[in-house]
Amino acid sequence: MNGAESAIKTALDAGLEICFANPGTTEMPMVMALDAVPGLRAVLALQENVVTGAADGYGRMTGKPALTLLHLGPGFANGIANLHNARRARTPIVNMIGEHATWHGAADAPLASDIDALARPVSAWVRRSESGETMAADMAEAIAQARGGAGQVATLILPHDLQLAPSGGAAPLSPPAARRAVSENRVRQAAEVLRKGDAVLFLGDEALSERGLKAAWRIASLCRARVMSPTSNARSERGAGLPPFERLPYLPEQALESLSPFRSMVLAGAKAPVGFFGWPGMPSSMVPAGCAVELLAEPDDDIIAALEALADFMAAPAYESPALDRPLLPAEGTLTAESLTQGIAALQPEGCILVNEAITSGWRYHQQSQGAPRFTELQLTGGAIGLGPSLSLGAAVACPDRQVIDLQADGSGLYNSQALWSQARQNSNVVTVICSNRRYAILQLELQRAGVNRLGTEAQALTDFSAPAVDWVSLAQGFGVPAARVEDTTGFAAALRRGLAEPGPYLIEACIA
Amino acid sequence: MNGAESAIKTALDAGLEICFANPGTTEMPMVMALDAVPGLRAVLALQENVVTGAADGYGRMTGKPALTLLHLGPGFANGIANLHNARRARTPIVNMIGEHATWHGAADAPLASDIDALARPVSAWVRRSESGETMAADMAEAIAQARGGAGQVATLILPHDLQLAPSGGAAPLSPPAARRAVSENRVRQAAEVLRKGDAVLFLGDEALSERGLKAAWRIASLCRARVMSPTSNARSERGAGLPPFERLPYLPEQALESLSPFRSMVLAGAKAPVGFFGWPGMPSSMVPAGCAVELLAEPDDDIIAALEALADFMAAPAYESPALDRPLLPAEGTLTAESLTQGIAALQPEGCILVNEAITSGWRYHQQSQGAPRFTELQLTGGAIGLGPSLSLGAAVACPDRQVIDLQADGSGLYNSQALWSQARQNSNVVTVICSNRRYAILQLELQRAGVNRLGTEAQALTDFSAPAVDWVSLAQGFGVPAARVEDTTGFAAALRRGLAEPGPYLIEACIA
Repeated sequence: MNGAESAIKTALDAGLEICFANPGTTEMPMVMALDAVPGLRAVLALQENVVTGAADGYGRMTGKPALTLLHLGPGFANGIANLHNARRARTPIVNMIGEHATWHGAADAPLASDIDALARPVSAWVRRSESGETMAADMAEAIAQARGGAGQVATLILPHDLQLAPSGGAAPLSPPAARRAVSENRVRQAAEVLRKGDAVLFLGDEALSERGLKAAWRIASLCRARVMSPTSNARSERGAGLPPFERLPYLPEQALESLSPFRSMVLAGAKAPVGFFGWPGMPSSMVPAGCAVELLAEPDDDIIAALEALADFMAAPAYESPALDRPLLPAEGTLTAESLTQGIAALQPEGCILVNEAITSGWRYHQQSQGAPRFTELQLTGGAIGLGPSLSLGAAVACPDRQVIDLQADGSGLYNSQALWSQARQNSNVVTVICSNRRYAILQLELQRAGVNRLGTEAQALTDFSAPAVDWVSLAQGFGVPAARVEDTTGFAAALRRGLAEPGPYLIEACIA
Repeated sequence: MNGAESAIKTALDAGLEICFANPGTTEMPMVMALDAVPGLRAVLALQENVVTGAADGYGRMTGKPALTLLHLGPGFANGIANLHNARRARTPIVNMIGEHATWHGAADAPLASDIDALARPVSAWVRRSESGETMAADMAEAIAQARGGAGQVATLILPHDLQLAPSGGAAPLSPPAARRAVSENRVRQAAEVLRKGDAVLFLGDEALSERGLKAAWRIASLCRARVMSPTSNARSERGAGLPPFERLPYLPEQALESLSPFRSMVLAGAKAPVGFFGWPGMPSSMVPAGCAVELLAEPDDDIIAALEALADFMAAPAYESPALDRPLLPAEGTLTAESLTQGIAALQPEGCILVNEAITSGWRYHQQSQGAPRFTELQLTGGAIGLGPSLSLGAAVACPDRQVIDLQADGSGLYNSQALWSQARQNSNVVTVICSNRRYAILQLELQRAGVNRLGTEAQALTDFSAPAVDWVSLAQGFGVPAARVEDTTGFAAALRRGLAEPGPYLIEACIA
């Protein structure tokens, strides 16, 4: 068994199942090991952000790491943006990056670069294998690191000659760091703050799971606290039978306004909210002056246990699910962002996974979907746009029996549209809904907010992509995904029904007014 | 004038003309400055590798830097792979990366990351502006750094609040470091080595310009030296009237074989050749044992002057252009890689720019095109595949009166196909020829070389993308580029003629056997 095979065997022993990949010459021993030690499924992507974005989606849905296989510094670099999102989502991922043979390093061959430097900003842990013998142990440690606490990105750099060097076989697995227990003192202090009233429970990470949300709802019911999440969340369980929660608005003036009623904020799995950007005249923190922040649980803590302990400690009532109506289909007419998302909320099937990467168009969906059949929502955590199609691919690979719907802005959807090809290759049940407004609407909004009333020539050139209009139907078909264009609510509902009914991927270009 | 405006004014004063961009919120003051201080043309790309690859193409063709405008760490990260190519090509580029407001840094907002760490591996020079007042001087220094010697990548990190802060206006320009003069001693030593015979002149950078090549040819004529270049070159002047030169083969066994006749190698603008990878059983250096390496000029030296001085010192004869025949169109029949590139060499117009990113399919083109009408060839310098469509865009923006032909492998072409949209937007005269073999042929070759006679399931899954087949015609049309699919030599010649005749971009999916 060589180093590559010992690493793959170790990953198999740890229960890993999937390797999203775009390999090159320096990764060929790893590719051969996938066949020599069978069991891991390889999923090819045509660009590396698809690899890492899919690993993010898979990790969010399964709670366990996918492997990625990436080619040297430049191949890894192509996947950094979506690893940035995964880092913010606390998704477990194990990256494997091939490196030049150790004896070839001094040659400074064309593809040589400082992989370690590129890996560190998006990895909680980076290791460069030193021998074929240690490669299995390196893999075992990478998996433990990825699985530690809330989950994180671990990166292995694997020189080509060491992948081929002899090894002693698979390494024993290391136990990952468990989520930390929350002290009784924190629970007591949170209870004290909440009993005073005018409080908001600010929830992230596992607090947005079924158990977390139900415990939070019990607490909130008792002391009339509000339940809120950050603007974007890695994963939240939503819909009928679950308690609704508010999302912090994106714009700072609205975020500040929505938090203004509170004298205290209890954090469970979320950081105290900050501005998405540092806007002139706005504060860095979105916590209102005079609002005390009380930490119940950090992301690496056992958040669910902390919330349940708090509910019990406060003697909160048992959970009763609120009655929430499912929205009806919108009236016949022009498609707008609002009627589009209402149509999704009206038609989405039980148990679907809703990927939401439509910042300007998808905002109302949160409210509209509160009474939709139970579903899981995945959002853009790190602001590195273009994640949606890849995240959807990974979620579909993780949960082949669930329908995925990708509510996707067109500007961001164009970053890594190659994910559509992998969706077709994997026959993934993903319906992509492109909110086609043919501009970076968020940037035009930002220019307005900065006092630009009429866009200049260059500002127009850099925020509008209507000329030429991207033909999403043609694009999707080019990647092997059937597609339709719709312009009114009736057409949209019909296309969505068709996409949901048919197996495999489907794309709807929804031209919105 | 604010910091952003002072930086743009400084760039204008330095004669810069183009800003390739994909900005976000933190770059809005720079976008506004492009309108407030008009003169620079903004070119939008839908993904950042298109931005940086286009800047590379522009810089190679004009010798002066384009600006790029990129959004924070993740946006920059998306452009790293093509900056890696630009770094290897020694292309002058000035990157402008927006950063969070200085007072917002501690908030660790979702998009925050270590931009400096990401920038350093692909930048010869990185500076983070410290105030609005110094932003103009920072720009002046960045331009001087980018223009220094052979050219290099300079990166400016511009915090949002400082872009908006007051400044004193444009800064005076700094003179870039000139190419270093080569000593008489080096010229004498090179002459001595060459006179002994069995020598190869190994040329890179400016040695592959018209003057460089003519001087090398004079020297080679005198002492029967061979003239050779690295496998891939940033830019070379080629075709009728110019001396032909050999290219070092990509595979190490062939490279070693081709260099085996030589007892000495004189380097002019190229490094001594090394293996593209460190293959088992192969040496790191491609210089044969017993072959002495003599340095005439490094990339940052005045290579042309050195070659001309050497030719004169050796009293080499005046340049006479060799008679080279243009290839005829291939016979009617199935399209192969060989007949495809022969067809291009037969039809390419005078003065075209040929971008060659077809490693397995494009190898024979070098020999076939020696007698084609004078042209410029641009290649993949850093091995980070996917550059071709973006490089073509940049070359077309730089030289609107010249025809660009992108000889493009399909696997690499899929990395940044969004460049097609910018080609349509700019009405660029780019004919993209996709060598559609629907697999990573180079990887299948590498697996064979590693002893794999029959691809396993996972190796097949990771090197073949025939299912589903990408429909390039549909893809191109989706991005607004007219396209055709061809399967025989006659169809290809007709499509190429059509593409060359029509203004604006065109794509040919050439299905090769």
